[in-house]
Amino acid sequence: MAPSFSGLPFDDIRHMIRELPGPDVDAAANVRERDAELTKPAGSLGRLESLVEWLAAWQGRSKPSVNRPVVCVFAGNHGVTARGVSAYPQSVTRQMLENFAAGGAAINQICAAYDLGFKVFDLALDVPTGDITCEDALDEKSCVATMAFGMEAIAGGTDLLCLGELGIGNTTVAAAIFAALYGGDAAHWVGRGSGVDDAGMARKVAAVEAALAHHGANLKDPLEVLRRIGGREIAASAGAILAARAQRIPVVIDGYVITAAAAILHALEPTLIDHCVAGHCSAEGAHADVLERLGKKPILELGMRLGEGTGAALAAGVIRAAVACHNDMATFATAGVSGKGAVG
Amino acid sequence: MAPSFSGLPFDDIRHMIRELPGPDVDAAANVRERDAELTKPAGSLGRLESLVEWLAAWQGRSKPSVNRPVVCVFAGNHGVTARGVSAYPQSVTRQMLENFAAGGAAINQICAAYDLGFKVFDLALDVPTGDITCEDALDEKSCVATMAFGMEAIAGGTDLLCLGELGIGNTTVAAAIFAALYGGDAAHWVGRGSGVDDAGMARKVAAVEAALAHHGANLKDPLEVLRRIGGREIAASAGAILAARAQRIPVVIDGYVITAAAAILHALEPTLIDHCVAGHCSAEGAHADVLERLGKKPILELGMRLGEGTGAALAAGVIRAAVACHNDMATFATAGVSGKGAVG
Repeated sequence: MAPSFSGLPFDDIRHMIRELPGPDVDAAANVRERDAELTKPAGSLGRLESLVEWLAAWQGRSKPSVNRPVVCVFAGNHGVTARGVSAYPQSVTRQMLENFAAGGAAINQICAAYDLGFKVFDLALDVPTGDITCEDALDEKSCVATMAFGMEAIAGGTDLLCLGELGIGNTTVAAAIFAALYGGDAAHWVGRGSGVDDAGMARKVAAVEAALAHHGANLKDPLEVLRRIGGREIAASAGAILAARAQRIPVVIDGYVITAAAAILHALEPTLIDHCVAGHCSAEGAHADVLERLGKKPILELGMRLGEGTGAALAAGVIRAAVACHNDMATFATAGVSGKGAVG
Repeated sequence: MAPSFSGLPFDDIRHMIRELPGPDVDAAANVRERDAELTKPAGSLGRLESLVEWLAAWQGRSKPSVNRPVVCVFAGNHGVTARGVSAYPQSVTRQMLENFAAGGAAINQICAAYDLGFKVFDLALDVPTGDITCEDALDEKSCVATMAFGMEAIAGGTDLLCLGELGIGNTTVAAAIFAALYGGDAAHWVGRGSGVDDAGMARKVAAVEAALAHHGANLKDPLEVLRRIGGREIAASAGAILAARAQRIPVVIDGYVITAAAAILHALEPTLIDHCVAGHCSAEGAHADVLERLGKKPILELGMRLGEGTGAALAAGVIRAAVACHNDMATFATAGVSGKGAVG
């Protein structure tokens, strides 16, 4: 399983990154070859076909599977909530975590409807990260330890990892990360999150501006962006994405906040998220802009902005159907169906 | 169950239409009220929320359900195939029907993955409709009888009807219907279908032009459009949509061809398809254009162009998840989660 990095510095993360496997181009080619024999016109399943090819490439298997999909939700608390950036109090993070445990949240229902495994990780909720407007969110040791903890997402075994998050205040943190990585006005990256009013929006923009001003020139290294103005659920997600790559497990990313974790890795090295697909384009802030920068076309666009992994989980349903089509459809030969151009 | 119209004229269809029920606005209001109490920010489930409201309005129940979703596929053969409009011979319609029966088609795998019921109707495959370029597809009696047969789609009972079709040559027929209803160049409405080459595209365009020229001034009444230049799977789908409305069963329409059935009804009276939602925007021809004319925003856009009900079936998975969220999520009160603006 994933190596333990607890307490080690970023150098070990960088070392791990250099050792990660690339795509299995033979498996992808085998998928294309079988696809051409299935009882349907070539290309007629559109995105379903490319999703299966992607799965094969990253699972390293000519017959990819989605037999044990898992949704992992990372929950963290944020010091920046002191700046009034959310419509909800920080205590709601734990309350919602308990709601998850009791099966009462949206993500629970989607996992039940689609038969997806579900895990939730409490990332030291009682110890919020530092307020990014005036201090580091995490020290290097804590950041790496959280990334390592996130690698446990795949510990139970899975063939498709869907990432989600929970954390009052974390759309502000995500906006700060995007502003640091991509530049531009803070207002461009800030959205309504869980539903702040105009005054709350102004406080979010001010918080992002303050964070960038405070950390200033120290945001050139993406891992420093993660540590200084990130959050535990984002660090853990970045760790989970890396561990999944190492173990050949394709990843479905969710909304604005999980995409911030993917963006950190992409900034380190663009190919690091080639095994990730975007499940859903959020209604939050500039998510569509970020996904375009990452070269990720979302599977779904349903106007959601809840997080929790809901977008990734819904997309997992589509991916499972795609694999079922590929693996279980008849071929023209076995079904006795005439091919294109045949005389009837 | 659905009344029998076999052998009766269009007048009876017009009479049935006048008796159809409208939306249950109280049920929809009750859904909105409960939605506001669920443990999520208001509006954060986006399209999922509006889908549940739509289901409630048309099922006429404040707690809508998707417990018995069914995919019904209507299969027909078309005389216009003699014009070389398809990449596949007409015999493939029956071969694919047999593939459906054997569980080998894409739609079988999606139904299995999402636990959707599946029915397929053979609409006199051995008796293709007339060649629309030079004769009527159907006489009035056959057209009404086929509509009545289509009403059997809901005979086994269902709470969500997904419509699909199968029929070599039927994207040409659908294009002719759209050209008749909306005007414009034939080329605008013609797409590659199952994958014709440029010469095949030219033959499709010519067939649509010939059909419009031949039937000319007799295409003012949408039911005449259906009878003269339609097909059995389109007539049956129109019947199924009407029967579903009468029995308060919401409908998910599929791609280009099923949308032609919806467009016929919409042209008769726009509200006739208010109980229908568009499952998927096809890569075929001008489907996006048609959906916009019908005021239908598709749930999915996955670049598919297979038909068979595949787009509707995938969308049914989303609708089922939407209902699960609405019906089974905890409320702020029951979960002990603080509401918006509460002090933490």
